[in-house]
Amino acid sequence: MRMVDLIEKKRLGREHTKEEIGFIVNGFAAGDVPDYQMSAWMMAVCFMGMSERETSALTMAMKDSGDTVDLSDLPGVKVDKHSTGGVGDTTTLVVGPLVAACGGTVAKMSGRGLGHTGGTLDKLESVPGVKTSVSIDRFKEIVKETGVCVIGQSEGLVPADQKMYALRDVTSTVQSIPLIASSVMSKKLAAGTDAIVLDVKTGSGAFMQTLAEARLLARTMVKIGALLNKKTVAIITDMNQPLGLSVGNGLEVKEAVELLSGKIEESYPLYEVCMLLASHMLMVSGLAPTEAYARERLKHALASGEGLRRLKCMIEALGGDTAYIDAPELLCQVERKLSVTLEGEGYISAMDAERIGIAAQMLGAGREKKTDPIDHAVGLVMHKRMGNRVEKGEPVATFYVNGAERLDEALAMFKSAFRLSAVKPPHAPMVYDVITN
Amino acid sequence: MRMVDLIEKKRLGREHTKEEIGFIVNGFAAGDVPDYQMSAWMMAVCFMGMSERETSALTMAMKDSGDTVDLSDLPGVKVDKHSTGGVGDTTTLVVGPLVAACGGTVAKMSGRGLGHTGGTLDKLESVPGVKTSVSIDRFKEIVKETGVCVIGQSEGLVPADQKMYALRDVTSTVQSIPLIASSVMSKKLAAGTDAIVLDVKTGSGAFMQTLAEARLLARTMVKIGALLNKKTVAIITDMNQPLGLSVGNGLEVKEAVELLSGKIEESYPLYEVCMLLASHMLMVSGLAPTEAYARERLKHALASGEGLRRLKCMIEALGGDTAYIDAPELLCQVERKLSVTLEGEGYISAMDAERIGIAAQMLGAGREKKTDPIDHAVGLVMHKRMGNRVEKGEPVATFYVNGAERLDEALAMFKSAFRLSAVKPPHAPMVYDVITN
Repeated sequence: MRMVDLIEKKRLGREHTKEEIGFIVNGFAAGDVPDYQMSAWMMAVCFMGMSERETSALTMAMKDSGDTVDLSDLPGVKVDKHSTGGVGDTTTLVVGPLVAACGGTVAKMSGRGLGHTGGTLDKLESVPGVKTSVSIDRFKEIVKETGVCVIGQSEGLVPADQKMYALRDVTSTVQSIPLIASSVMSKKLAAGTDAIVLDVKTGSGAFMQTLAEARLLARTMVKIGALLNKKTVAIITDMNQPLGLSVGNGLEVKEAVELLSGKIEESYPLYEVCMLLASHMLMVSGLAPTEAYARERLKHALASGEGLRRLKCMIEALGGDTAYIDAPELLCQVERKLSVTLEGEGYISAMDAERIGIAAQMLGAGREKKTDPIDHAVGLVMHKRMGNRVEKGEPVATFYVNGAERLDEALAMFKSAFRLSAVKPPHAPMVYDVITN
Repeated sequence: MRMVDLIEKKRLGREHTKEEIGFIVNGFAAGDVPDYQMSAWMMAVCFMGMSERETSALTMAMKDSGDTVDLSDLPGVKVDKHSTGGVGDTTTLVVGPLVAACGGTVAKMSGRGLGHTGGTLDKLESVPGVKTSVSIDRFKEIVKETGVCVIGQSEGLVPADQKMYALRDVTSTVQSIPLIASSVMSKKLAAGTDAIVLDVKTGSGAFMQTLAEARLLARTMVKIGALLNKKTVAIITDMNQPLGLSVGNGLEVKEAVELLSGKIEESYPLYEVCMLLASHMLMVSGLAPTEAYARERLKHALASGEGLRRLKCMIEALGGDTAYIDAPELLCQVERKLSVTLEGEGYISAMDAERIGIAAQMLGAGREKKTDPIDHAVGLVMHKRMGNRVEKGEPVATFYVNGAERLDEALAMFKSAFRLSAVKPPHAPMVYDVITN
């Protein structure tokens, strides 16, 4: 088998065999297939796509390229939740503890933020003392004790994906549905999960900018799950504005704590998406026969404070100081807070989530490159959402600032995210679809 | 400017600016743009194509990536001829001397054979003593003295093309019309030519297997020529069978000498294609107002022996022994000659030129890799052409063989090129189209 022939095969739109996919993935992971052939092949995949069989084979080959985690000695159905990446999306810190409080087993490996999107590890580490790199044995112990644990992905997991992702990032081959789907699913499978609930974002702040693309990605991942015997559900949610009001690590933990403390009302989008995700996590775990039943139990876990207690247990087990969860405002102590106003007045008809994410990144909350340091306290809190009216001079957000190096740049970026119109725009849905296998 | 953004731009099918093309080509030639980004970009070009403006800009950027040859001190219009690569195509050795004999100035840089296709340098070097790597000054001297000189491409010419071609070869990105067109045209422009006649091959032995592709490539190159103020003509000719009867270096020189000696009749395809190419070379040189006038002069140069004399002058100037031109059978002295027969009988309805070229390569006439040695004397001579009848046991070719290592393989490959049918197939044209700007 020669890689150049396999590149040609894909360029001509033909279907690879399982053996060919294995040759490509293992060859690339081992360094026998050079970067320049892999990038050409991945670009051909961007144009020609892959069949379900090819995508499943790619997922398995990637999973098998490294270590895998065995969670079979943990009780119950191990359920994982994955978001394709958003802005102001702190759902993991809410649904993990809530599902655990309802009897679920949430053993989750998570990632860091990159570009305009945030990452759960960074949010967790805003709590002083938290260490997200723990051994698999300790990880399992924590899950056994508290029902939930979120840690960083182990080094040896899915090395082919790590290498492929780094190459895709610099060759404009990120935007390929089979490559995205196999990357996500191979990591979930390697991490030993039994069931997966996916949150596929669509809109201005998401990789999938159109609903059609998001639906295709969701269907592809659900199909891979079915072919590989993992119960998989995908929810397609809106990312035409940040999900929560806070963007920034400590600020988002604070918002999650507020939700778990019952301080956030039910009409609030973050509340709704968390409830939907958590309901499906309970259902795929076999702990709730219907969504209505699941919601009942989740509301009870919220009202009783059991969800919040599970979050604190997990933070404590990871070495964190729970005093910061009791008083989460301590997580966002900054040099100054700045009210941000827009020019003009009217109804908010657009608030580009990507630009808002980049503004927070410019304040120091996120990274441009993987090695950039971040400031866990900085970020921004919005006071308005899509469709809200803004009066002349009325603040739309508060910036949490340390230092002022890129403040002007961040302000300009933030303001450019908004469009005001004279008429109230139609209400946009928060959840577009639920796709099951 | 970032290469990843330019890859994305091309992936989305947008048009590059001249500056962007310059950034890509110069960056790649300098090693600032790594192979893995270049291969991804070239694959995107395979799918999305390039506009005429982009292809011209690419051609100029490639030309400007290295040295260029200044032929302006040579008299008259400097005319070049280029073939996209064929089997049994010895036209350069015929048309160069003939055009020179009619007053043209043919200063040509040529290449070596690779895979199933032959190269003029290898053919020239089959004449003992010939050195095809000479200085530019000596090259120009020879052109001044004899009107024609064919040498190897200088080292420093179009380094970007050399590097791009090596990468395309291993990433299945050879088959892109703008990449092929800019590769050919940048080399011709760097070699200092004023006018170009292109022989675009189509059929089983050509890169462009369909007429539609060949036409598109021809039009693209002619357009580039027009945009860059070089008189350019493209002729589309058939490569569903070898052009001449001989395939092999010394054997092809012998066939060229026979043609220049008036020993080959006018109905013969090699004769017809040589006349057509040479006519257009005279016309673009301003030496003939019409094709009819050009043909008259060329026939005269043939009949008078002036064409043959020019070939001998050039061979002599390059250090070659002209005794071999006087007795060209000396160029193909081999251990043994072998008559080849096919099974069955009937009319030849297919004779795959690529397979015949590979058979000759297996006999030692060609290279698989650039560094392989070749045997100038070996090869094959066909006794039949498409549409001819073959009786049971009648030889269709003679193999010229030294050693027997891959003889069986070569025989099997050669025989697999043929298809015999009970009915005479329709006559296929030799020349499909002439495209001018």
